[in-house]
Amino acid sequence: MITQAEIQLQTQGRGTYDITGQVQAAVRKAGINVGLCTVFIRHTSASLMLCENADPAVMRDLESFMSRTVPDGDPMFSHTAEGPDDMPAHVRSILTQADLNLPVCGGRCDLGTWQGVYLWEHRIAPHNRKVSVTIIGE
Amino acid sequence: MITQAEIQLQTQGRGTYDITGQVQAAVRKAGINVGLCTVFIRHTSASLMLCENADPAVMRDLESFMSRTVPDGDPMFSHTAEGPDDMPAHVRSILTQADLNLPVCGGRCDLGTWQGVYLWEHRIAPHNRKVSVTIIGE
Amino acid sequence: MITQAEIQLQTQGRGTYDITGQVQAAVRKAGINVGLCTVFIRHTSASLMLCENADPAVMRDLESFMSRTVPDGDPMFSHTAEGPDDMPAHVRSILTQADLNLPVCGGRCDLGTWQGVYLWEHRIAPHNRKVSVTIIGE
Repeated sequence: MITQAEIQLQTQGRGTYDITGQVQAAVRKAGINVGLCTVFIRHTSASLMLCENADPAVMRDLESFMSRTVPDGDPMFSHTAEGPDDMPAHVRSILTQADLNLPVCGGRCDLGTWQGVYLWEHRIAPHNRKVSVTIIGE
Repeated sequence: MITQAEIQLQTQGRGTYDITGQVQAAVRKAGINVGLCTVFIRHTSASLMLCENADPAVMRDLESFMSRTVPDGDPMFSHTAEGPDDMPAHVRSILTQADLNLPVCGGRCDLGTWQGVYLWEHRIAPHNRKVSVTIIGE
Repeated sequence: MITQAEIQLQTQGRGTYDITGQVQAAVRKAGINVGLCTVFIRHTSASLMLCENADPAVMRDLESFMSRTVPDGDPMFSHTAEGPDDMPAHVRSILTQADLNLPVCGGRCDLGTWQGVYLWEHRIAPHNRKVSVTIIGE
């Protein structure tokens, strides 16, 4: 059985947003026992990641790492039509994931204890983001 | 229903190659309505990515970023049998993706407006690359 | 048909571990001909990757690259409760993959000649790691 759902999220700008609950709700609603849940973001300046879900300092440190590795306003970049965070948002997206593929077992995504599903907004301004969830199971 | 197809691409050396049309054609041919399309590259020195498909400057900037982060001929690398771009090609591949998992809806990959599917050749010399497409749907 | 299996691995600390044989064994046991094999790691301080499987120097060079890009004990990081390799392990995981999605053809994962499936332990201390394998096929 194949089911699809959409998660919409209005971000408040750059930062991480926990969508684990919404993904688990879509799987529960699909009513399968075992299978695969594919989470897919339909954008190229925001991305998905699985990350430690306990200490908020992890998210701050991730931002620090990305800010150093892919700095806003880097003079190396020529794609700057939408501002100094435009091209860095594409690079950050490519270094992380556009899709996550999670095993479903016992009717839910079988994540590790410390794994959360996060949408990572890489643009500084708030954006409306669409995430597609495809559930294949039986 | 499960279908597989192969896309072969002769690259002209380092750079990005838009394969969105070929992936969509494989999905169309599979004749499903809803499901999942997994694109997989069978190499470790070329990779796949979803990226902004409108401004060619994005691709140039991505190359600039990778050239700075993973420079050819870096004296740190000892795996140099195939030349100064050998090990950087492996690192670039690992920092990006070997597989993309795209939701299928209405008989086609349901990409965002600005998302294209790209093969990224990381070797300087032209290579013959094989990409496998697996489509699960109904 | 959907099958799940678990691979458990006791790592000896930071480094890469070839699990290709265990993944192929799970697919063989599932008894399908064609489909998709999703390998998923249930941790945020170890990750998965597809990499060149012939020259051990590749793995040493990958460690060198990560050690330079995401150094242990970086004063930028504040999430240090478990030591100087705690936050770097999360960053390394996010720059690589938590899931790999491999086409199955002829009853086995249809990898390229030089592709191996590796678990990459990012913590310095040995850890017990759990990897879930979901196989969808017919």
